Amino acid sequence: MTAASRKAFAEALTGERIRVDLGERSYDIEVGHGLLAGAGARIRPLLAQPRVVVITDETVADLYLEELTTSLAAAGIIHAAIVLPAGEGTKDFPHLADLCDQVLALGIERRTTLLALGGGVIGDITGFAAAILLRGLEFVQVPTTLLAQVDSSVGGKTGINTKAGKNLVGAFHQPKLVLADTATLTTLDDRQLRAGYAEVVKYGLLGDAPFFDWLEEYGDAVLRREPAALQRAVAVSCRAKAAVVAADEREGGIRALLNLGHTFGHALEAETGFGAVLLHGEAVAVGMVLAFELSSRLGLAAAEDAARVRRHLRSLGMPADLSLLAGCPTSADALIAHMRTDKKVRNGRLTFVLARGIGDTFVCHDVAESDLRALLEEALVVTTAGKPKP
Amino acid sequence: MTAASRKAFAEALTGERIRVDLGERSYDIEVGHGLLAGAGARIRPLLAQPRVVVITDETVADLYLEELTTSLAAAGIIHAAIVLPAGEGTKDFPHLADLCDQVLALGIERRTTLLALGGGVIGDITGFAAAILLRGLEFVQVPTTLLAQVDSSVGGKTGINTKAGKNLVGAFHQPKLVLADTATLTTLDDRQLRAGYAEVVKYGLLGDAPFFDWLEEYGDAVLRREPAALQRAVAVSCRAKAAVVAADEREGGIRALLNLGHTFGHALEAETGFGAVLLHGEAVAVGMVLAFELSSRLGLAAAEDAARVRRHLRSLGMPADLSLLAGCPTSADALIAHMRTDKKVRNGRLTFVLARGIGDTFVCHDVAESDLRALLEEALVVTTAGKPKP
Repeated sequence: MTAASRKAFAEALTGERIRVDLGERSYDIEVGHGLLAGAGARIRPLLAQPRVVVITDETVADLYLEELTTSLAAAGIIHAAIVLPAGEGTKDFPHLADLCDQVLALGIERRTTLLALGGGVIGDITGFAAAILLRGLEFVQVPTTLLAQVDSSVGGKTGINTKAGKNLVGAFHQPKLVLADTATLTTLDDRQLRAGYAEVVKYGLLGDAPFFDWLEEYGDAVLRREPAALQRAVAVSCRAKAAVVAADEREGGIRALLNLGHTFGHALEAETGFGAVLLHGEAVAVGMVLAFELSSRLGLAAAEDAARVRRHLRSLGMPADLSLLAGCPTSADALIAHMRTDKKVRNGRLTFVLARGIGDTFVCHDVAESDLRALLEEALVVTTAGKPKP
Repeated sequence: MTAASRKAFAEALTGERIRVDLGERSYDIEVGHGLLAGAGARIRPLLAQPRVVVITDETVADLYLEELTTSLAAAGIIHAAIVLPAGEGTKDFPHLADLCDQVLALGIERRTTLLALGGGVIGDITGFAAAILLRGLEFVQVPTTLLAQVDSSVGGKTGINTKAGKNLVGAFHQPKLVLADTATLTTLDDRQLRAGYAEVVKYGLLGDAPFFDWLEEYGDAVLRREPAALQRAVAVSCRAKAAVVAADEREGGIRALLNLGHTFGHALEAETGFGAVLLHGEAVAVGMVLAFELSSRLGLAAAEDAARVRRHLRSLGMPADLSLLAGCPTSADALIAHMRTDKKVRNGRLTFVLARGIGDTFVCHDVAESDLRALLEEALVVTTAGKPKP
């Protein structure tokens, strides 16, 4: 570790506050190790009335609910908790309806605040419930997975899944505060941590080459949950997302860069049933490699950049090619058909984030389907042969 | 009819355009007799892509869907229609989920527009679906009941009902256009027309005494559906609502005046099961009388003002006292308990719109419960005695 790195690590450990600049909807993201114990005191000044309804899931409730409610009580905040089943299946209309009924049965008022304690599922459904209950309650995010800390808790996208796909129903609704306690990641299972790490890598690839360099050196420290490495990874990611969201809250323009790897990833998730076969972050990891390979095939980026992305992900035990589809007969056409059901389709055209190099990406609406098909067919052939690229 | 009245009537027949001034969310309300036939041409310039999904109910579909879709086709707008069951029961989570699934199954994109053709139920659920599908589609309102034309289609309040009450889940989502074709009111049944008329009266009472004077003279012409009278009633009401909404889109302040009669009305609807015993507009009619009686009891307004409101409503066949509860054993306490479940409660205090006189109202958060109970007990005694006030 260089002296500069050591200094950055030491700074990181003191905790960081990142502002998401959205006019009257501005808010802070606080990143630090052990923030949960002081959550009540941090939240209290932001509340319109000292009353909070905590929404969490069974897994997280066992681990962190008591610590949180103790800190709310210590800050004089009246609170109740609603515990939902864990898992992506909770993010649907019946659970949303039931959640709204439960919150309303508590006799809440317009100035009551909801608090999401959990991963992306809890954050997304809680944020959406907050958006629609009494036509808009305030809410606070306390994300407890790496994916939620670096991605879903920041930026105000909330929602649920429907028969037609993921996150097709929802609202833009910004939280009043995001408290990312990196200590909660110590209880996250390894596979979930790696899946979340893919989104961390994304911030390097889409616009911050030095951060990708850093991840190549310290990514293993992040995955070993070394507090300073973890905090730096989360804080840099949040700062990147905050800047993009501040520039483009409702995804009219550059916010679309956050979808790097997501058009491919969406197709892979759809093909594998949006389940445990392939987690969202894993699909994004493969999708980012494919986006760089497509960029290389189109002569936009060097082949070595795609190889570098693949090597980094693979070195940390993440999927980086289509061999994960080996047990699942599929085709380029099937994957392209899934892409067509994506929210990002515009006038029937697919949207991709392509790269000129690591840290230099742009949105492209006119990839020729023949190029896309050729890429996917080649990737699938390599898979069938069971011989992944180096 | 005076010469001035005749002139106003003649002007009214040419149709009117009212601007709802909300910055980038501004839109027009067009009011006129026979607008539906030209709906396609009016809507076409506002569409991000020439594609519309019409949401309507079985009753309205039989009457007006063909006329609408013919005009959409003539304007080169690609369209599909989804027909929901008629009635308040449609405004719930299961129907919303099903509606979203149906819309998504059509393969819509973010720039597709929804169009609500129907009364308040269709407008509210369609507007809410538009607010949440793909995190926000644009939508157009084509209201076909008097209540929807003068109230629910204007101002961007959308939503559904839940176990805990009406409209407790929803969003503020402004339409791109409201087309109020008063010719569609010719097929509305008399009771629904009178119920909608109560909201027309509300605009006079809350801030426009000359309009109330006009209604005393021409209210019967409105209810006979004379085109000029109908158009004036709708246009004046929309203009009043547009002004209030422009000043206070999200009900932080003066928008609350639109709740004149609604705290009492809400309790009466809750007590009668939100059904056919008492329509929303009928509950508002009684609620407005009670609000004026409470104002008189508190020494704020003259007793004659309350009597005048009661006389006008009763002269046109509307309920104006609690005799409608004769078959339904109730109490002041039961009604007050319902008021406490209202969205408008703040830190446990009830909100009322009170009057200093006809056309002069204000929001009050500190009515003593003893005054409220005394008013309700007296009103209930009169009812039991079967001897309504003159």
